[in-house]
Amino acid sequence: MFIVPERDIADLMTREAAFDAVEKVFAAMASGDAYNFPVVREAIGHEDALYGFKGGFDRAGLTLGLKAGGYWPNNLEKRGIINHQSTVFLFDPDTGKAKAMVGGNLLTALRTAAASSVSIKHLARKDAKVIGMVGAGHQAKFQLRAALEQRDFEKVIGWNFHPEMLPNLEEVASEAGLPFEAVALEGLAEADVIISITSSFDAILHADHVAPGTHIACMGTDTKGKQEVETALLGKATVFTDEVAQSISIGEAQHAIESQILRAEDITQVGAVINGTHPGRISDDEITLFDGTGVGLQDLAVAAAVVDLAVAKGLAIEVDF
Amino acid sequence: MFIVPERDIADLMTREAAFDAVEKVFAAMASGDAYNFPVVREAIGHEDALYGFKGGFDRAGLTLGLKAGGYWPNNLEKRGIINHQSTVFLFDPDTGKAKAMVGGNLLTALRTAAASSVSIKHLARKDAKVIGMVGAGHQAKFQLRAALEQRDFEKVIGWNFHPEMLPNLEEVASEAGLPFEAVALEGLAEADVIISITSSFDAILHADHVAPGTHIACMGTDTKGKQEVETALLGKATVFTDEVAQSISIGEAQHAIESQILRAEDITQVGAVINGTHPGRISDDEITLFDGTGVGLQDLAVAAAVVDLAVAKGLAIEVDF
Repeated sequence: MFIVPERDIADLMTREAAFDAVEKVFAAMASGDAYNFPVVREAIGHEDALYGFKGGFDRAGLTLGLKAGGYWPNNLEKRGIINHQSTVFLFDPDTGKAKAMVGGNLLTALRTAAASSVSIKHLARKDAKVIGMVGAGHQAKFQLRAALEQRDFEKVIGWNFHPEMLPNLEEVASEAGLPFEAVALEGLAEADVIISITSSFDAILHADHVAPGTHIACMGTDTKGKQEVETALLGKATVFTDEVAQSISIGEAQHAIESQILRAEDITQVGAVINGTHPGRISDDEITLFDGTGVGLQDLAVAAAVVDLAVAKGLAIEVDF
Repeated sequence: MFIVPERDIADLMTREAAFDAVEKVFAAMASGDAYNFPVVREAIGHEDALYGFKGGFDRAGLTLGLKAGGYWPNNLEKRGIINHQSTVFLFDPDTGKAKAMVGGNLLTALRTAAASSVSIKHLARKDAKVIGMVGAGHQAKFQLRAALEQRDFEKVIGWNFHPEMLPNLEEVASEAGLPFEAVALEGLAEADVIISITSSFDAILHADHVAPGTHIACMGTDTKGKQEVETALLGKATVFTDEVAQSISIGEAQHAIESQILRAEDITQVGAVINGTHPGRISDDEITLFDGTGVGLQDLAVAAAVVDLAVAKGLAIEVDF
């Protein structure tokens, strides 16, 4: 079997490879070739940690396995290591034998960024010029970098609860040679694409902050109770997601479903747009909203891609297991 | 992190170490120090395989992780490798980092054998002389070997649906210098301890096949629909288990619960007997029955033990992950 340690991922994995892997597996999910297993998520009662497993199987890509790990909130302060810790394990679907073990921390950031990026490619207006960010933390930089590759953006605008974080966004904008402007939430009406990536438990972005024709990728809500945007916005938008079951239970759509502003059958897997079985955006005035909840298959897809890259470059550690 | 491949387990792991690990973790489960996570089990629609994850956390032993793998029914015929394939992954509960990867095939056999053995130690009559086996397959040999260490048995008797398998039992009996006798099911009334280890979907052992004072370990039922013993036997017996939640849903007790011969609250975790909070057997006439369903914590416990042994002997492969 092959091992690719966390420290090698940054040199091996590219945004392009992550994008391709995630786009392919979203397509496989919509065509019924790939599915996610029930998620296990446990507050283990030690170090305030959340630990669990996200597994799945992609019959098209023959990728089987899981991401295991979680959130250790004391890691950074106590030990100087990051709080999110995860590892991806791949299995041979022909035999059930362990096939690869891959550091999952950077991969998680890249696959999450790739998801909103895939949604922008397939749902944003082609002439989108202004991208708006709600959230300016560590992950926001990944989302923005990946998003900037999808359209000829001319400006980045952004809002964050703690304005002192906004230089994170400015840094990425200037890497791409783009101006950055801090805005009030009302100022996001200027954006053609908005990515929200926060850990909020209350709606930040309201329906009247968003102009007609905007594409919004809601990437922060992955737990019961979290919320980034007003439910009225989901009522006005055409809603897409990675996986409907997660979208309505732990994703951004949970609240709109609860308040009956939206029905599960109104939500479309973005993979259907990739596959061409759903038209996606049909007018320039339409608001499209992607509810990115994060599925195990994304983790498996990017891990499988990085193993291939590591093997090709002779960098994978081979263990006779 | 440490890697212990499947091929090294046989030389490293002992029945004693497996027994100690399983006894300790059953005790930790009963005292509330250890718990199993929800089990994921999926028919993945490829190679007729069943694949899944059994995870848990033992706060007392600081063992966190999962066993991943399953059943690939075509392995042996197509590829000459065993059909049950599993791997155990241990994590550091202080940080969430991957800590060890261990071949899980032989360990699964050993921890299953250790479970019935623990039940015999704590529930069988001290003067038990005859052990009866229902089932004579590959796993039956493991169960019998481990059981023979718990009492001064003088004879092994056994029944199997395919009598041509019975020499498996005879082989283990003669290793221990004991006579073996093939019996009809009625003949099992001679046994003081009975282990059933089959893949049956219909009751094999009936209440009138069992004498007063017998201890029975039902080790084969781990899925909805499977059944080894008549429900009336559970009505007559004092029922113990590894985990009540599994016992009543996928274990031997599922049928007695369904037909209201037994209530969940009548079933005792064997760990309570180990801890001394339940008296266990209280009379020589009592029938005790252990419903061994198999929990992830057993796998983690034996894997942690084998990692310690491998590290102590310098046999663990160390990878800078």
